[in-house]
Amino acid sequence: MAGKSAETGSEYGLIEAGGTKFVLGIADAARTIRARHQIPTTTPEETLGTAVAWFREQGLNPAAIGIASFGPLDLDPASPTWGHIPRTPKPHWTGADLVTPFAQAFACPVAIDTDVNGAALSEYRWGAGVDDKSLLYLTIGTGIGGGFVNGKHAGGHLLHGLSHPEMGHIRVARHPQDHNYPGFCPFHGDCLEGLVAGPAIKARWNASLSDLPAVHPAHGIIAWYIGQAICTFQAMLEPARIVLGGGVMHAPGLIEMVRDSAAEWGAGYFVGDPRAIIVPPGLGDNAGLLGALALVLEEG
Amino acid sequence: MAGKSAETGSEYGLIEAGGTKFVLGIADAARTIRARHQIPTTTPEETLGTAVAWFREQGLNPAAIGIASFGPLDLDPASPTWGHIPRTPKPHWTGADLVTPFAQAFACPVAIDTDVNGAALSEYRWGAGVDDKSLLYLTIGTGIGGGFVNGKHAGGHLLHGLSHPEMGHIRVARHPQDHNYPGFCPFHGDCLEGLVAGPAIKARWNASLSDLPAVHPAHGIIAWYIGQAICTFQAMLEPARIVLGGGVMHAPGLIEMVRDSAAEWGAGYFVGDPRAIIVPPGLGDNAGLLGALALVLEEG
Repeated sequence: MAGKSAETGSEYGLIEAGGTKFVLGIADAARTIRARHQIPTTTPEETLGTAVAWFREQGLNPAAIGIASFGPLDLDPASPTWGHIPRTPKPHWTGADLVTPFAQAFACPVAIDTDVNGAALSEYRWGAGVDDKSLLYLTIGTGIGGGFVNGKHAGGHLLHGLSHPEMGHIRVARHPQDHNYPGFCPFHGDCLEGLVAGPAIKARWNASLSDLPAVHPAHGIIAWYIGQAICTFQAMLEPARIVLGGGVMHAPGLIEMVRDSAAEWGAGYFVGDPRAIIVPPGLGDNAGLLGALALVLEEG
Repeated sequence: MAGKSAETGSEYGLIEAGGTKFVLGIADAARTIRARHQIPTTTPEETLGTAVAWFREQGLNPAAIGIASFGPLDLDPASPTWGHIPRTPKPHWTGADLVTPFAQAFACPVAIDTDVNGAALSEYRWGAGVDDKSLLYLTIGTGIGGGFVNGKHAGGHLLHGLSHPEMGHIRVARHPQDHNYPGFCPFHGDCLEGLVAGPAIKARWNASLSDLPAVHPAHGIIAWYIGQAICTFQAMLEPARIVLGGGVMHAPGLIEMVRDSAAEWGAGYFVGDPRAIIVPPGLGDNAGLLGALALVLEEG
């Protein structure tokens, strides 16, 4: 936050940038949200312009702006296209620069990361996290994404390599009763996302898990895959907490089945006990905006 | 390194603790190794006692001591058994305290982590790493282990959750021509280690990869699994460098096959190009001791 002038306020402009809607908010560091607004995602010019205009109407004089966005994003700080969307199947948005319109309009620093990383960081700080210990956040909905925060003793940073993680694209072994469906991932076919995200469930069983009866085998098959993925996530990261969010996880009883499956896959080998560390999100309706706030405070 | 007194030297005592041998060394921060010694791994009392005695004979007056050890290790800084081996199939070593004998004998700080994490950090600092960017080190030998260093812009720390990673235990899909062998991992059967480490190769083909003719299908099958695992590692971590070490990787031509396989699995989705980022280790015979040195400097 170098360069912050004495005139800037103590408020933050927050943007949860989604593929169908943008949620805008204004909050302070104590997480009080004084204004909130929702706009549809159309073209970058229109959507970002509308967002800037709304912030101006609200009299925003921000210390900084935080963006928790759908991905992929270029997050390499050395890249000339940092904060851009390098490529997306979403029309108009390939190459979109999410940062510059806000940085120019409000002459303040802008923090940006994926919505999943924002959620991971806000859960770590204010939600389901415990004692600043490492936390993995997974969203299992129309896609699958994950973010990981190292425990404080290992720096307390979000995991970042050349880019944000793409945890939905890990490889998995196929369930013995699920060998026919090829998976819907256009890149990898039957990666985790290709088999377990909402569209893969609909494609196989013509309904969401929540709409299928409790005795339907789909529940067991999906829990088996998620449990297997958690075994891999524990082998990679040994998180102290694993937070499972997203629409698929709303299916009644699924989280209990996932806990059992993960415990079976791990066979007691890892330090974290899946039955104890797997939890639902701790933050409510403002989770997206709080993700943007966590990102902007992290940069501070 | 708080509490370091004016009398302590500028040298470091280094220990590469392996299951069959301990390599001891004395070096300065510029990586000059003035003495080096090897002892067999017997019981903890005998082995650690012999190590302390050798350091004393060499007149060691260390600023600190670094240990890069076989695992698993308790690395939770809040744990009363930090630096102990919680459980191991190796006789006598379950519960062994690797730190206290050295801390008491030399009244200096002791840094400890796994040998794989030490190797990851030393490769990041002095070996195959590039520009302080994130690095994944994998060893594929009698077992499989991995360590990951976040790029400097994300803190430059080793990845640590509740424990060091256990990357050999990720789950993989089975190769279509490899459905009979159950895998040798006592916990998980056909996890990556259970299918790809040296003993799994010997069990299937009664020879090491290096001893099998170049046309033998084993090469393709093993490269297929490692390529698949790298797809998962890229999805999790997006490393800027992937360093492949260990005895299995000595098989001629294997690294090229792995590069091709990983590129095929990833299908161009990840930022890092497997054909460019997968490399052999950059450090030579002293890699183990340099790992211990990297760990002790990291704590400094």
